[in-house]
Amino acid sequence: MSDPGVRRVRLADGDDTLVVEEPLEIRVDGRPLAVLMRTPGEDLDLAAGFLATEGVVEDPRDLAGLSHCLDPSVPDRENVVLAHLAAGVEAGAERFERAQRTLHALSGCGLCGKASIERVFQHAPPLPQRLDLDAARIGALAASLRASQPRFAQTGGLHGAALFSAAGDLIVAREDIGRHNAVDKVIGARLRADHWPLVDTVLVVSSRAGFEIVQKALVARIGAVIAVGAASTLAHDLAVEGRLALYSFARGGRSRAHG
Amino acid sequence: MSDPGVRRVRLADGDDTLVVEEPLEIRVDGRPLAVLMRTPGEDLDLAAGFLATEGVVEDPRDLAGLSHCLDPSVPDRENVVLAHLAAGVEAGAERFERAQRTLHALSGCGLCGKASIERVFQHAPPLPQRLDLDAARIGALAASLRASQPRFAQTGGLHGAALFSAAGDLIVAREDIGRHNAVDKVIGARLRADHWPLVDTVLVVSSRAGFEIVQKALVARIGAVIAVGAASTLAHDLAVEGRLALYSFARGGRSRAHG
Repeated sequence: MSDPGVRRVRLADGDDTLVVEEPLEIRVDGRPLAVLMRTPGEDLDLAAGFLATEGVVEDPRDLAGLSHCLDPSVPDRENVVLAHLAAGVEAGAERFERAQRTLHALSGCGLCGKASIERVFQHAPPLPQRLDLDAARIGALAASLRASQPRFAQTGGLHGAALFSAAGDLIVAREDIGRHNAVDKVIGARLRADHWPLVDTVLVVSSRAGFEIVQKALVARIGAVIAVGAASTLAHDLAVEGRLALYSFARGGRSRAHG
Repeated sequence: MSDPGVRRVRLADGDDTLVVEEPLEIRVDGRPLAVLMRTPGEDLDLAAGFLATEGVVEDPRDLAGLSHCLDPSVPDRENVVLAHLAAGVEAGAERFERAQRTLHALSGCGLCGKASIERVFQHAPPLPQRLDLDAARIGALAASLRASQPRFAQTGGLHGAALFSAAGDLIVAREDIGRHNAVDKVIGARLRADHWPLVDTVLVVSSRAGFEIVQKALVARIGAVIAVGAASTLAHDLAVEGRLALYSFARGGRSRAHG
């Protein structure tokens, strides 16, 4: 079976394999929430993770249904995922609207880093304690992520994310053209397998660590984040205040510990 | 004067310089359009470029005013930019609403790559002809971008974008934590300097080339894009159909020509 995440194209001097980028619309109980530019192939993981990290789904049981759109009258239905919240979800509509306000910048709240961090803590408070890792563990996990990026090896065009147990065992790895999507796919895969929240796990990303990466980890209750690239000020501040162990520039056997 | 784009932080084993990430809200005639996570310091360039590449501003004369919010009653007003459209701008409200629909995924249009490309062509048709570059020029421009990234040198955490004349002269370079923002800053700097559209120019980006990078270049009428990283399928397709010369993996004296 061919991989929907890569495509051969003809270039001026020969063929090449490119990462596929296509829009995906996520609808919740019939209402469109977001369109993500993503790499096809793990759409249900992506949608589940996105709904969890945006606060619409707080528990696997909140999700009564999750599937591609099957309605033949919907154009490009392979790029539409339909989520249905369980009937018992209190304040489902409220959560949807809060996520919509955040995504569409209609919140009118404070607009500085401090306000952004406080907003995260409203539904994902600081972790009870830091999950500190030693240098050997950090280096081993970063190397293990590199070995889990088959599409990157083909195209050079995807970000990778992988979740490990605190003992260092690989739980799940995913790739996507968007670095936030790769993280949502990993988180969504676990939610769909009924493992939730993700306490005592370590997230490793092939990219930099910005605010949203740390936010997603904190919402999922992941204990530590290892980034191959740099951390931003806001990611640093959120990690310190959220007691999430954050390691940046994890390469060549070294890293920088934040917080 | 200290640079608002970087900040010293204390880490476990010494100090470090991080790239600053803070939200910026862009309001058009009082109505909030978007919040971008950006590196502060060139906010007016970013806002002008964003408004141009989202189709709200089509000409420097469309922009009657552009400034930070000065109202002391607005919290975090340094993170708010106010844009005012000129009174004579026909369909200003219509352009705002179209941009809002696109940004907030409320368009209900087709959701595949083909539909995405057609949507770009509605207000940015294909270029009249390709601006082909030879290998020596591509390598020289990529090297010149690397020399124009002072904050990357400090932090390792920013993307760079630079605009060159077809003859190879550097026109403007900008950095940002977001790769789309870096491109919008370059485009906005030229629009604010009353140079528009950007015909016969070459955009070089330190990152990968996804759909939105090529879209922004096409809207600004830039003739060629050189990316240090990979191109996606949708970026490739848009470049081919839009007659925009796209070069990916521009490193080590080599690159791949799309279209």
